[in-house]
Amino acid sequence: MARTGRRPGTGGTRERILAAARSDFSRAGYEGVTIRGIAAEARVDPALVLHYFESKDGMFRAAIQFPVDPGVFIPRLVAPGLDGLGGRLVRFFLDTWDSPAGSPLLGLIRSVVGNEEAAALLREFVTREVLGRIARALELDHPQLRAGLVASQLVGLAMLRYVIKVEPLASASRDEVVAWLGPTLQRYLTEPNVTKRKRSSRRA
Amino acid sequence: MARTGRRPGTGGTRERILAAARSDFSRAGYEGVTIRGIAAEARVDPALVLHYFESKDGMFRAAIQFPVDPGVFIPRLVAPGLDGLGGRLVRFFLDTWDSPAGSPLLGLIRSVVGNEEAAALLREFVTREVLGRIARALELDHPQLRAGLVASQLVGLAMLRYVIKVEPLASASRDEVVAWLGPTLQRYLTEPNVTKRKRSSRRA
Repeated sequence: MARTGRRPGTGGTRERILAAARSDFSRAGYEGVTIRGIAAEARVDPALVLHYFESKDGMFRAAIQFPVDPGVFIPRLVAPGLDGLGGRLVRFFLDTWDSPAGSPLLGLIRSVVGNEEAAALLREFVTREVLGRIARALELDHPQLRAGLVASQLVGLAMLRYVIKVEPLASASRDEVVAWLGPTLQRYLTEPNVTKRKRSSRRA
Repeated sequence: MARTGRRPGTGGTRERILAAARSDFSRAGYEGVTIRGIAAEARVDPALVLHYFESKDGMFRAAIQFPVDPGVFIPRLVAPGLDGLGGRLVRFFLDTWDSPAGSPLLGLIRSVVGNEEAAALLREFVTREVLGRIARALELDHPQLRAGLVASQLVGLAMLRYVIKVEPLASASRDEVVAWLGPTLQRYLTEPNVTKRKRSSRRA
């Protein structure tokens, strides 16, 4: 618990709000949570919650320690169009992992793998905020499936390169990784839905 | 500890050997471990270790709970040749996860993500027994890199489909997943080394 007698707004308060947020999001899911409810549980004024986290979404990202804001990076990645998007996604992913912003990502993977609740929270967040945004921006068919395929390759890269650290992938240059994975992501985003022709691609 | 007074070969003995194996492999790595050393640590006859696990490799697989034997499945997958190998690898991976043999895999991912020692053991095993075998069988250039790329896509698929359970990937049919991922793995295995031409593929 935060020590008492300190002015509101210092470390302990922020942590108390975050603890209330984690508890509420786990129990009620994103839709079932309100700023007002979290403020009440943390015994602070709702304005203080907004002061720290700007929005319910910002609070959610802080609660799961998601280091970047999809509302910022996805429009930027998608803006130049579909051409080369796969490569841009891979490069952004590597840049984030290798930057100070990337340091919570290992903890995020650990908590997701070890904990059903954390997995559910991240699933909801990634589906709504990351995959949904990409899909809407690109007006693709089967947007959630495509975005899930993209995520599968990026998460697997993180596991091999940063968690299990298998060489030479762990030490490969960013350019090299982009050159290998970019076309994969590009295909997941743009190839006509393969399920319609799956019988003819059995040998692929 | 195993209860005493039971005949050798029942549950407790096997568990004691496994515990000794995990401890020895973690401390000394695969190369530094002997059947005799593990037998001594578990206070059993070396013949009993071989009776349970057949070989040092079998003991290692049991210690990390790796559910299938790469010495069996890789030659089978590679035998028909390079054509269609990507799809066969994806299908085998899905079949294994969905079979009773797949049940330890979730635990394996959890222990690898949560534990540096487990990650090192799995890394060594996968590099030597899985990736190395595929590379040798196919006589590919950059075999470890190619096999690592293949593993990155398969591990990521497992994370999205079985751990985080993101839809619609979690419920997609095996045929559909094979149709999407097969060509990816095929490209990782067969495409000429992309690093040589990475400057021209920046937009990929």
